[in-house]
Amino acid sequence: MPSMRDQATEIMRRSDDLAAFTTVEGQITRPYGTTALLDAQAQLDTWMRAAGMATRTDTVGNLIGRYEADTGAPNAKTFLVGGHFDSVVDAGRYDGTLGILTGIAVVAHLHDSGQRLPFAIAVVAFADEEGNRFHTSFLGSSPVAGLWDPAWLALEDDAGVTLEDGIRSIGGDPHAIVADAIDPETVLGFIEVHIEQGPVLQDRNLPVAAVSSITGSLRATIEFIGVAGHAGTVPMNLRKDALAGAAELVLAVEAIGTSESDLVATVGKLESSPGASNVISGYAHLTLDLRHPDPVVRTRAFTSVRAAAEAIAERRKLGLVWTDSPSFAETPCDARLTDLLRTAIAEEGIEPLSLFSGAGHDVITMANVGPVTMMFVRCRDGISHNPAESIEEPDVEVALRVLLRFLLDVDDTDFG
Amino acid sequence: MPSMRDQATEIMRRSDDLAAFTTVEGQITRPYGTTALLDAQAQLDTWMRAAGMATRTDTVGNLIGRYEADTGAPNAKTFLVGGHFDSVVDAGRYDGTLGILTGIAVVAHLHDSGQRLPFAIAVVAFADEEGNRFHTSFLGSSPVAGLWDPAWLALEDDAGVTLEDGIRSIGGDPHAIVADAIDPETVLGFIEVHIEQGPVLQDRNLPVAAVSSITGSLRATIEFIGVAGHAGTVPMNLRKDALAGAAELVLAVEAIGTSESDLVATVGKLESSPGASNVISGYAHLTLDLRHPDPVVRTRAFTSVRAAAEAIAERRKLGLVWTDSPSFAETPCDARLTDLLRTAIAEEGIEPLSLFSGAGHDVITMANVGPVTMMFVRCRDGISHNPAESIEEPDVEVALRVLLRFLLDVDDTDFG
Repeated sequence: MPSMRDQATEIMRRSDDLAAFTTVEGQITRPYGTTALLDAQAQLDTWMRAAGMATRTDTVGNLIGRYEADTGAPNAKTFLVGGHFDSVVDAGRYDGTLGILTGIAVVAHLHDSGQRLPFAIAVVAFADEEGNRFHTSFLGSSPVAGLWDPAWLALEDDAGVTLEDGIRSIGGDPHAIVADAIDPETVLGFIEVHIEQGPVLQDRNLPVAAVSSITGSLRATIEFIGVAGHAGTVPMNLRKDALAGAAELVLAVEAIGTSESDLVATVGKLESSPGASNVISGYAHLTLDLRHPDPVVRTRAFTSVRAAAEAIAERRKLGLVWTDSPSFAETPCDARLTDLLRTAIAEEGIEPLSLFSGAGHDVITMANVGPVTMMFVRCRDGISHNPAESIEEPDVEVALRVLLRFLLDVDDTDFG
Repeated sequence: MPSMRDQATEIMRRSDDLAAFTTVEGQITRPYGTTALLDAQAQLDTWMRAAGMATRTDTVGNLIGRYEADTGAPNAKTFLVGGHFDSVVDAGRYDGTLGILTGIAVVAHLHDSGQRLPFAIAVVAFADEEGNRFHTSFLGSSPVAGLWDPAWLALEDDAGVTLEDGIRSIGGDPHAIVADAIDPETVLGFIEVHIEQGPVLQDRNLPVAAVSSITGSLRATIEFIGVAGHAGTVPMNLRKDALAGAAELVLAVEAIGTSESDLVATVGKLESSPGASNVISGYAHLTLDLRHPDPVVRTRAFTSVRAAAEAIAERRKLGLVWTDSPSFAETPCDARLTDLLRTAIAEEGIEPLSLFSGAGHDVITMANVGPVTMMFVRCRDGISHNPAESIEEPDVEVALRVLLRFLLDVDDTDFG
């Protein structure tokens, strides 16, 4: 029977294997509805079945591997363990997939040792968390959590393909998605193991931590409308340069983000048109992503950015269109589950730290169907959403030991 | 016989007809080597032949219509009249094409009235002046002017198609381009009629003006290299945001451009990657286009931008790559030809103003094979490189009268 150390080694190898499924050679870029995503799904399916699970794919494209409860528990509920296997553009190899691979490894361990728990374990691999293609949030877990919005079918990717057609292209029936919802009565809880994506565990020299809550975010898209013109002939004082206005807002967002501790504010995307070296930009749009655990701080910062955009537009005589994007209130993790997780961490001889998450995760939607928690694993220099994303095998081994202990503790306390 | 007024009406109509040839519906976007460009060429060919010209296409794709000299002049030279029929992205309908259409109209006038001059007239329609696709400068006129550089064949468009393949796709032999050169001994001169693309003629309430010189330009591409990261988890003070660095330079360029009169400085293109709302940018590149008639001012401003880029990179701990792009010294128009043009303007009862051009034009390359000059036509609000580009039919009629008079004056003075 493979040891937890062997399982950790296998997870490092499998992370590399999954990294090869990409739409862009030389990167890890795996958006929803692509062949790369389907290929990754098929690989995960193979590993789930090898670990003793029965698998199924739901309509939106999530893969669910099920490890049944002990036969002495006929009305057993299900504890869900999982993560997502889509990626951002030019991603790292652990974001999302670590939650799936640790789930598979723990089930493999139980299966190899002939153990079943008084509840079923379902390892869920969500088909889209990043929303990179259709600019959605939690596309994979939302239907599962009963939060599917049929209006999303009309969303378009940058090439004008609708989500409806994207679902069809992977063999799903867009109008059957509502059936992906799981019955909350059957759910014992949900846990995701995820890289921290921040520098705190490295600073504290700790391999893992429990997550107490997910920070709330406020997001928007801001458009500036100017007048395109010839770069050689329009005097500086007669210009209405949309890109210059957008650039000014990028710096305002950065300054506001720096103005309060724990606040982060980011312009991740800025595009202008027509986008030629000898033409003044007539149009520019940019995204705003703003996060802080405290909704008061968050809203104050958001209001400041909006005021800055309005001041820029007025002074530069630019048109301004401000569009709020889907935002998220903070999501507290379930206190009892998170305490169980901290206990499991402490039982492994590790200081049981609680962190908040600056990133959004599927626990936000999954909290709609049951108690949720998360475990963070240390990642090098806090770098994520980047090919340099890096974790250490011994930390993965710790995460596996803690996760197994946690699931056994759920059993012991007859949680749920 | 159609009057000059009728010819002007026809030019307005033909400008609309040409505007329909585009690669992007709803825009005028006509890059080199596209079907839209070939279709526009075929249309111009029809009009040239209807005006009594024999036509040919050269290897790079320029269309040349020839109206022979009076038979009493067997060793006659050729006076070239022309413009370009490619366009920037989302362009106006007069930039470039006006030089071709006015040339055709004047020849049509001579042809309809049975007149020939002691020299031939060649109306040249250049296939690429804007360089929008392969980031070239004067791709069409350079081979004609004997300035073809075979190294250009390796240039790539944004999709990775080489110029060599682009030339093949329109039926040309990339290695035969050197044969497009015309013999300077046969060239009497070159004139282009072009919209002003600036606000001076509107301010002065004048329909046309002579152009005394083309402003010199300095250009560069600037890259900032940072570290991509998760927008929710990397604290502001640990970020190396390439887009924020680029935004700061956009504003520095604008400030430097505003610092001296007649100076213009533009960032027309800025791109960052990975370009997702929830990812800090790890890379950004932008273009610099800087113009002033005085090379001392130009170089001083260029040096200031470079110093600003270096200061930004150092303070933000970003990598910086500065690449000079092809730049142009100022090109004076031929004094004698320009005087002839001012005389023709004055003979039409118009104040004979001389302007410098802030935009680059094919006269820059054509000056290599003979004396050159240009005539500017008033355009509304100085707007160009923009769908709102607009000129008035009566101004076009004036331009035609001046152009005809100019060509007759070339004859009268036995110029060349």
